[in-house]
Amino acid sequence: MYEGAVQELIDELGRLPGIGPKSAQRIAFHILEADGADMRRLATAITDVKERVKFCSICGNVSESETCSICRDPRRDPSAICVVEESKDVMAVERTRAYRGRYHVLGGAINPIGGVGPEQLRIRELLNRLSDDAVTEVIIATDPNLEGEATATYLGRMLSTLGIRVTRLASGLPVGGDLEYADEVTLGRAFEGRRNL
Amino acid sequence: MYEGAVQELIDELGRLPGIGPKSAQRIAFHILEADGADMRRLATAITDVKERVKFCSICGNVSESETCSICRDPRRDPSAICVVEESKDVMAVERTRAYRGRYHVLGGAINPIGGVGPEQLRIRELLNRLSDDAVTEVIIATDPNLEGEATATYLGRMLSTLGIRVTRLASGLPVGGDLEYADEVTLGRAFEGRRNL
Repeated sequence: MYEGAVQELIDELGRLPGIGPKSAQRIAFHILEADGADMRRLATAITDVKERVKFCSICGNVSESETCSICRDPRRDPSAICVVEESKDVMAVERTRAYRGRYHVLGGAINPIGGVGPEQLRIRELLNRLSDDAVTEVIIATDPNLEGEATATYLGRMLSTLGIRVTRLASGLPVGGDLEYADEVTLGRAFEGRRNL
Repeated sequence: MYEGAVQELIDELGRLPGIGPKSAQRIAFHILEADGADMRRLATAITDVKERVKFCSICGNVSESETCSICRDPRRDPSAICVVEESKDVMAVERTRAYRGRYHVLGGAINPIGGVGPEQLRIRELLNRLSDDAVTEVIIATDPNLEGEATATYLGRMLSTLGIRVTRLASGLPVGGDLEYADEVTLGRAFEGRRNL
């Protein structure tokens, strides 16, 4: 609809996740009217991230070095590994400040329909790390959905033979939530996992 | 939170309109995992739009040339000018295929609180175009909100002295909408503007 460069930008923006045609148009006009230096910084940030960011050779988290800042940090407890699906999940757990161990990023979850089996995930790398006898607990923190649960079950079975403690994050009512609005599955899990007060 | 380049990209994306921190993170990881050539195209589209796109010297619409494709088109009716706030509104009217005249983009609407008065808008340029006696009708298509209505009233008064027909787009019920869910002001306007069947 628009002439050349404006339409090209709208098209490129519209390919990003969660950006519909209206948002793409709004962002394109914002870029058109914004300060040139700011927009060159945005363009550079996009190309830079592809060039500078690698994945940690130990845990698979995003990193600008061979190993990520968490794996390099000697203050992190080497006896615990928290297994997550994506780098985003590492940040989510870090924000809780409740965990001081290390991580392992699988790069997804088992999803037979989507063509993701155990061999597409970084499970072999996890097993290699566990051969080091410093690790005493593996905390499985995959998403509480179908794929995440399948991955947790698979890992649980596989790791149970190694004599390492394997745990899964608790399912239950979200803090600050309302019991009335909880779905049946979550509420059922909250009952199963009830604790003595 | 993230190391260097990833966080820089999240910050830059988060400054775009309608992109919150969660979306910025999701888009940043998409960019990180996407094809390098696609992402270079996105970065180029952002810098290109700033370099290649100008504003039409006649109507103020976005254009890659001195004048836009609509102003250059000899098939467009030179007797009508449709006055809109933004280039986006030109495209919205074009999509209706109901109008074959020309446009004038004001670059905003009168908004005293936001510091936008008539002198910040392209009103002088509009008056210069009207001195050409080819124009017989000015259709004011500013947004149907407070600022748009104020701008329409201001332009209506100013142009009434020139002996040119000045019209305003009809307000009323959106087609396909539900009378029950229309707000009072829209429903009131629909009554005022009722027509014989």
